[in-house]
Amino acid sequence: MAETPTIRFGVIGCADIARKVSRAVALAPNAALYEAVLQDPDVDAVYVPLPTSLHVRWAVLAARSKKHVLLEKPVALTASEFDEIVEACESNGVQFMDGTMWMHHPRTASMREFLSDAQRFGQLRSIHTHFTFAADADFLENDIRVKPDLDALGSLGDEGWYCVRAILWAANYELPKTVTASRNPELNQAGVILSCGASLQWEDGKVATFHCSFLTNLTMDITAVGTKGTLHVHDFIIPYEEKEASFYAATESGFDDLVTKWSSQPSKHVIKTDIPQEARMVSEFARLVADIKFKNSKPEKKWPTISRKTQLVLDAVQASIERGFEPVQIQE
Amino acid sequence: MAETPTIRFGVIGCADIARKVSRAVALAPNAALYEAVLQDPDVDAVYVPLPTSLHVRWAVLAARSKKHVLLEKPVALTASEFDEIVEACESNGVQFMDGTMWMHHPRTASMREFLSDAQRFGQLRSIHTHFTFAADADFLENDIRVKPDLDALGSLGDEGWYCVRAILWAANYELPKTVTASRNPELNQAGVILSCGASLQWEDGKVATFHCSFLTNLTMDITAVGTKGTLHVHDFIIPYEEKEASFYAATESGFDDLVTKWSSQPSKHVIKTDIPQEARMVSEFARLVADIKFKNSKPEKKWPTISRKTQLVLDAVQASIERGFEPVQIQE
Repeated sequence: MAETPTIRFGVIGCADIARKVSRAVALAPNAALYEAVLQDPDVDAVYVPLPTSLHVRWAVLAARSKKHVLLEKPVALTASEFDEIVEACESNGVQFMDGTMWMHHPRTASMREFLSDAQRFGQLRSIHTHFTFAADADFLENDIRVKPDLDALGSLGDEGWYCVRAILWAANYELPKTVTASRNPELNQAGVILSCGASLQWEDGKVATFHCSFLTNLTMDITAVGTKGTLHVHDFIIPYEEKEASFYAATESGFDDLVTKWSSQPSKHVIKTDIPQEARMVSEFARLVADIKFKNSKPEKKWPTISRKTQLVLDAVQASIERGFEPVQIQE
Repeated sequence: MAETPTIRFGVIGCADIARKVSRAVALAPNAALYEAVLQDPDVDAVYVPLPTSLHVRWAVLAARSKKHVLLEKPVALTASEFDEIVEACESNGVQFMDGTMWMHHPRTASMREFLSDAQRFGQLRSIHTHFTFAADADFLENDIRVKPDLDALGSLGDEGWYCVRAILWAANYELPKTVTASRNPELNQAGVILSCGASLQWEDGKVATFHCSFLTNLTMDITAVGTKGTLHVHDFIIPYEEKEASFYAATESGFDDLVTKWSSQPSKHVIKTDIPQEARMVSEFARLVADIKFKNSKPEKKWPTISRKTQLVLDAVQASIERGFEPVQIQE
């Protein structure tokens, strides 16, 4: 049997998260890490954890240099800016993937199975996601995520990205029809969002809400409710533990005869993983790149497609805030 | 030592829930059950699980007959209708309490302690509550809660009552400034709400959302997030078990150095109770009535006050739906 081909990574950026992903590149069996320059012919792919305002420039440059692109989220400041990145990747035949690690945890696949099960979950009808953390004074003063010229989307681009992705993931990537931002988001003096929320409505009556904030205790929830079942997870972005992760699934919940207790309780599902989710992300990305490099495969379109949908919803939340919390129609 | 005085109850109404509360009256050590007529001088208090549209008539009649009133929720169709009930109770010196049982579970007091703890929870900033159940075809056709002439508020009055009460409870009964209903609530052919939601905003930037529905799996959540802590409970209205109930509390949650797992996890708190929450409710009501009857105490104003606040928020959600999802200011 042939050896697993190794894909060689460069890193463009110096964010804290580069430390974590560099370790993930080392842990993934099919990836090696280089300090990168786009001109280096030995580099197959780049990981780009730059401030969002620099994404379009460097991701497009990387694609034009025939480097596959693993890009931190939010992928861009707007969907139309992201379209430039996608165009550059497509016309240069390189793979695009965003750095949403939890998508690659085996728990996510297991939760997907539950949500897709007509008997256990039924049809999705409502979702709530919540991602907040208590940023310290240094973060609120100096982090790129509170700077209008760096990560202008603030908490919405950082935490809201995960909330919106989880909602779209639960909805099988069906875009909502309308997005309405919640009133009084909190902004810093430069106008960058420190906390906000929104409600989303689909054509079929499905609804979702999310809330994100840099100003409150670390919390990361998905509550997804279907006609027959309920999913709960409280650590969806970063699991409590590195080697295993849980979720709670309930089916046809009800009460006893006198309505004094439940007739059945949600069941806890524990999913083990040998390598952490960030290494699984790098490994999946490297596999796609190796297929392109060694097997003449085409880039996998799923990843830029779901990045774009996520960005479209962020754009709509931002637009709704700017328009005084009016509902904004999503145009694909 | 004097014997615990027994308070004698009548029941006006024939709803299913009367079976449960009748059992609770039997379980509470200081209450006895009678089939009631308001003229019966042996009856101290009435429990009224009538359709909401009949509340004002019968609760006012009961108060004028000097019977203390334990009234099912929603307490009325509107806050101004409820004011007639409160006026009748006050001018006749009788106690008023609504039938929101979970308020009386010892777990609720324990969760309150956590939310009030400046070190463990800090300041409340965001809340989400969710209460849904999957009503069967018979319910959706025949239950009083889907009939415009009986419980005109539908899911909002039934499930939304609990969602809004939990939000107000978490916010220490501070009323929000603005309430905005979510778009596309689901209505039946008669125009009664089968599912809806809203977002609430406070002057200080605190926010809340809730969702209620007759059309999805049984789910009952509170997620309350403070500057330092997070509260999670998944069975707040009817605990999974009759004799004990849990909640999850997290304080100053964070990650390990490489952000691959949490540095501390939420802790589970289990609260035992010797008698079920509905018996504790009846017992507390009977205690207040006994204090009035035997000790010349004044009625406890806390209970009608929080009923009224809950109803005010329901009114605002209803008004927002009627006004095309415009924000509605709460006027106390």
